[in-house]
Amino acid sequence: MAQKPSIPKGTRDFTPLEMARRNYIFDTIRNVFNLFGYRPIETPAMENLSTLMGKYGEEGDKLLFKILNSGDWLRGLEGLDIMQEGPAKLTSKVAEKGLRYDLTVPFARFVVQHRAEIQFPFKRYQIQPVWRADRPQKGRYREFYQCDADVIASDSLLNEVELLQMIDEVFARLGVNVAIKLNNRKILAGIAELIGEPNKIVDITVAIDKLDKIGMDAVNAELAERGLSQQAIAALAPILAISGTVDRRLAQLAELLKTSETGLLGVKELEFVCAQTAKLGLRAELDLDVSLARGLNYYTGCIIEVKAKDVQIGSITGGGRYDNLTGVFGMPGVSGVGISFGADRIYDVLNALDLYPDSTRCSTTVMFANLGENEAAASLSIIKQLRNAGIAAEIYPDPAKMKKQMTYADSQSVPFVAIIGESEMEQGTVTLKDMNSGEQKSVTPAELVSILKN
Amino acid sequence: MAQKPSIPKGTRDFTPLEMARRNYIFDTIRNVFNLFGYRPIETPAMENLSTLMGKYGEEGDKLLFKILNSGDWLRGLEGLDIMQEGPAKLTSKVAEKGLRYDLTVPFARFVVQHRAEIQFPFKRYQIQPVWRADRPQKGRYREFYQCDADVIASDSLLNEVELLQMIDEVFARLGVNVAIKLNNRKILAGIAELIGEPNKIVDITVAIDKLDKIGMDAVNAELAERGLSQQAIAALAPILAISGTVDRRLAQLAELLKTSETGLLGVKELEFVCAQTAKLGLRAELDLDVSLARGLNYYTGCIIEVKAKDVQIGSITGGGRYDNLTGVFGMPGVSGVGISFGADRIYDVLNALDLYPDSTRCSTTVMFANLGENEAAASLSIIKQLRNAGIAAEIYPDPAKMKKQMTYADSQSVPFVAIIGESEMEQGTVTLKDMNSGEQKSVTPAELVSILKN
Repeated sequence: MAQKPSIPKGTRDFTPLEMARRNYIFDTIRNVFNLFGYRPIETPAMENLSTLMGKYGEEGDKLLFKILNSGDWLRGLEGLDIMQEGPAKLTSKVAEKGLRYDLTVPFARFVVQHRAEIQFPFKRYQIQPVWRADRPQKGRYREFYQCDADVIASDSLLNEVELLQMIDEVFARLGVNVAIKLNNRKILAGIAELIGEPNKIVDITVAIDKLDKIGMDAVNAELAERGLSQQAIAALAPILAISGTVDRRLAQLAELLKTSETGLLGVKELEFVCAQTAKLGLRAELDLDVSLARGLNYYTGCIIEVKAKDVQIGSITGGGRYDNLTGVFGMPGVSGVGISFGADRIYDVLNALDLYPDSTRCSTTVMFANLGENEAAASLSIIKQLRNAGIAAEIYPDPAKMKKQMTYADSQSVPFVAIIGESEMEQGTVTLKDMNSGEQKSVTPAELVSILKN
Repeated sequence: MAQKPSIPKGTRDFTPLEMARRNYIFDTIRNVFNLFGYRPIETPAMENLSTLMGKYGEEGDKLLFKILNSGDWLRGLEGLDIMQEGPAKLTSKVAEKGLRYDLTVPFARFVVQHRAEIQFPFKRYQIQPVWRADRPQKGRYREFYQCDADVIASDSLLNEVELLQMIDEVFARLGVNVAIKLNNRKILAGIAELIGEPNKIVDITVAIDKLDKIGMDAVNAELAERGLSQQAIAALAPILAISGTVDRRLAQLAELLKTSETGLLGVKELEFVCAQTAKLGLRAELDLDVSLARGLNYYTGCIIEVKAKDVQIGSITGGGRYDNLTGVFGMPGVSGVGISFGADRIYDVLNALDLYPDSTRCSTTVMFANLGENEAAASLSIIKQLRNAGIAAEIYPDPAKMKKQMTYADSQSVPFVAIIGESEMEQGTVTLKDMNSGEQKSVTPAELVSILKN
């Protein structure tokens, strides 16, 4: 009995056209990573659950895909115990492995496991899929790609500068207008310290993030609701009022945060990064956003977020500096900084703006029609010459009706069709049809190579 | 408490050097696939278990990695039932998804699911990892890559011809000497028919495969042991005695199998494929092997197997024609033919013979030493010019001791190190050190670009 085929929800097949588009994005990112001296690694899809559990919070633990132990996975369990323990506790007994949830934890595990072979600082990139048992919805998948570049064991802010250049280069090559927002965890700590609420960084940032939308009064109301004193709210006001260019705002922040050593350090770091990138020239808009608060659980210095200016889709790239990525695996005090390109959202942006080059549309340069056994044999020997010259070429495998063969050529967006029939065989020529103009001409095999080479 | 990091047995991390080597192999295969008009697809790592189960035999079902259902995976089960049912039956209740085991079944599922969008014949390739819960051992992994090319919905033997050209091209590019063995399922059926044992194809091929090693008498003894009559064994003798060139042997087979319509068709198919490839010229050795019997469960026509001549490692590529790949998913009677490159074994062969080009050894073309903040800033602006010219370049991020920086450059096999110190800044020059010759010279930034461009 035939099965009706389907794939798990939240996963996707990619057709040749989709692959060409996605590979265009991956290749662009990979080329920029290589250009900046980052080197690729890959880690297994499966990690031990002991590596993954507890690294993404309680919710993350639930979203890990767990792999049932092979063979008799019930061994050592009693039926009654099973029902009493319930699924959460029992999972650790029947599943020892899980699918990777991101590329960061596997990278940390990799660094510690291979520390003896690695020459630090280690600049690595990694482009691989990750899996999350999230509820699937538009733009959110259970299998999706991350493209991460990190440098580990270097404190230098030149890394931040270069990562910003890399972001700029990738989106310039892709033709996407982006705005890059910067913040620094130390500035947030300084602000919280200044207003006497050192433990309320998250509450403060969540509220002030809405300033543009709801206005100062509503933000202040929310801050009060979140437990900030009127004194703290009053102290925060001048910080929210800073204005002007990035440089000017940084100068105002330096003045406001002058009593906070941490806050001042954060300002200094951003000043350095902004000055250096300005000197080198970014095409993207670089902005300071003191409400930017992604990754507060792990980022300790610069925080980076990138949004597309012409498509509403949220963050398409993010990153920041962290100080203890590898500590949990027994290698404490190693600072690193990294960025992650969200390939699937970038794909959505390029689809929305139709920014793909023509090269992603067609496969081979020429398809030879198939007019019969002898004609096909003659075609194959010319096709061999084309391929030797690096020209992708194919022959329609069956001597089908010409209409069917041309429909196939159209569906593949093949720019040229070559025809070798009886008269062409006699004359040693090829009839070449330009599929865009419809123009048709008779050429020699040598002419064919030189025409298609261009 | 720190965890000692490790990965699941049978899986591997790949370091930058290993990645460069593996990508060299994947890129070579991918380029040849593209050159011949095959187009890429990708399918999800996870498939529904209903898609995978029963497709690889009973043993294969056991070797599938199964993914525990998310959330309360015990829902609807009673403890007592659990112990009574045992792990095999219970698995289907707690796991609905599994990791793909090969690329063939997902391809068949893809074709049927997307049949309305696909223009047939469909020439697809797919380069993705697969997972099997095999006992790990040398050369056998639980996660490994397959590189498959198939054309579906075309009966033409030109596909077989082109697939052989593709195999030849890939191994010529990789510099690996290979022997390609050919057989045809119809010849095996003809032989079995001829000797009156139509159901003993497998027994016959297993025994005659040992001819070279153990000699005719021992083979005949084994055939008797496997239940073949003396009459059948006697009838088989002239088939085993065919000798000479491939063409001569095919002619002898045609004569011997003249009473078997199926057998003769198989001979004709091989004659066509051999004649066409001979005309086009293969660099690899092409041989006929009537004992070649891989994939007898599904292959219906040509059978292909490739071995490296200079490394003992078994088959590194295989393939054949099948007639009912998609039948199980409700699309019967579609013929196809395909090949699969075993990337991990090819990797072992290239490692054994050290066949990697120099380009797989180094990452960036030049590393700039870091002599301090001002020097680094000057370096960054020259590095930007290099990158704009397409030259991969990096700066050592920290102003560390020169010895440490040079050790890093060595470890990355960087061919050039550039130094900008105080005097270079004054003179607007760069000191360039060739890491192979040790030679050092002073150049202008423009000269630097042109030297490194070559």
